[in-house]
Amino acid sequence: MEIKVLKNIMQHNEDLAAENKTILDRQGIYCINMMSSPGAGKTSILEQTIARLKRKINIAIIEGDLMTSRDAERIDRTGVPVVQINTEGGCHLDANMVNKALQELVLEGLDLLIIENVGNLVCPGTYYLGEHDKVVVLSVPEGHDKPAKYPLMFQEAHVCLLNKVDLLKYSNFDEKIFLSDVQALNEDIEIIRTSVTTGQGLEDWCQLLLKRIAGSKKTDVGSKLGD
Amino acid sequence: MEIKVLKNIMQHNEDLAAENKTILDRQGIYCINMMSSPGAGKTSILEQTIARLKRKINIAIIEGDLMTSRDAERIDRTGVPVVQINTEGGCHLDANMVNKALQELVLEGLDLLIIENVGNLVCPGTYYLGEHDKVVVLSVPEGHDKPAKYPLMFQEAHVCLLNKVDLLKYSNFDEKIFLSDVQALNEDIEIIRTSVTTGQGLEDWCQLLLKRIAGSKKTDVGSKLGD
Repeated sequence: MEIKVLKNIMQHNEDLAAENKTILDRQGIYCINMMSSPGAGKTSILEQTIARLKRKINIAIIEGDLMTSRDAERIDRTGVPVVQINTEGGCHLDANMVNKALQELVLEGLDLLIIENVGNLVCPGTYYLGEHDKVVVLSVPEGHDKPAKYPLMFQEAHVCLLNKVDLLKYSNFDEKIFLSDVQALNEDIEIIRTSVTTGQGLEDWCQLLLKRIAGSKKTDVGSKLGD
Repeated sequence: MEIKVLKNIMQHNEDLAAENKTILDRQGIYCINMMSSPGAGKTSILEQTIARLKRKINIAIIEGDLMTSRDAERIDRTGVPVVQINTEGGCHLDANMVNKALQELVLEGLDLLIIENVGNLVCPGTYYLGEHDKVVVLSVPEGHDKPAKYPLMFQEAHVCLLNKVDLLKYSNFDEKIFLSDVQALNEDIEIIRTSVTTGQGLEDWCQLLLKRIAGSKKTDVGSKLGD
């Protein structure tokens, strides 16, 4: 009985997520869902990403938080459109919330939509929002054992940013274990080592986004031509 | 309809948590529920706590993890009894899981039971397990803005350990904002600054535990006397 209710909820979420993806594809917008524990550095990475890309492409952000609009305020200062979703205690974004946020954005002309999920390394991994790629951020101080202990998000993600690598020298983070655990869970995942403090890896990360945006537009044109 | 189901689930959890508390009180066991994001340092703090206290009192640990028994193996090496709960993807412990774990432990003669919850700064905060006190661990690299962004756990907690304070000098963590945000949420919370690397604060933390264990036994004797 309880399981049945949960299945209905999840099916409803999948349907709405598919609708979100149709909306995005129609406009040729590449969309990522960024997930991590609280404080892994999602918002700081976004600020840096926007600073590097906003003169080349049109970006919008959806900010998910339990409470407060602090992250949205940080993004607002970068000058790109941002919509804040407050889950009011909810531990993840769902497709319905994103659907409503999409209605608040001018989608025409956008190239990249980044959804910053609620800081939580567990629950957001089970909710598809309609994104093209999932990106998981793990920061060095969290420890190399986290992929093995929280496998779902690493199994689902297309890209993993290992952030705060400038703190490697002050920690006992074992990169070999981290890499072998992540690759055992997901052999196709792309891993980029980043640091917002030193700038390391951010250029690679932005190049990856630009490549995927270009690929997404090609597919989109193809589908428009019935290809 | 969905809300009704959720209420039933939560009521069932509250009932089982009350049962857990009765079991613990009958044996005079003081119990804490430790919660934090993944990687804030819960297991490392436990290892240090056990090392400092195990010759003075009898301790047992319940380890909550989605998968793996890595944390339980770490605790096992300290020589105290440990039961592993694998939630198999579940984002928090509930009272039923703890109830089953209690059946696996020899409770007689125990002074302190520490439940290490799943690493998640959101969901575990809503599930009462029967513990006497909730302890939230926040680590410096997560950022000073986390109490405001994830308020529930800080509202509910009796003690907050600010961990990894040895990393303060490498971060932009603003302790003034952290303290004022936490105290705005919860004026009764006790805050201890800790570092497993330098040992800072661990003695204060252990003293606090010993004091609460003594208090708990006094209450227990009182209630036995019908006082």
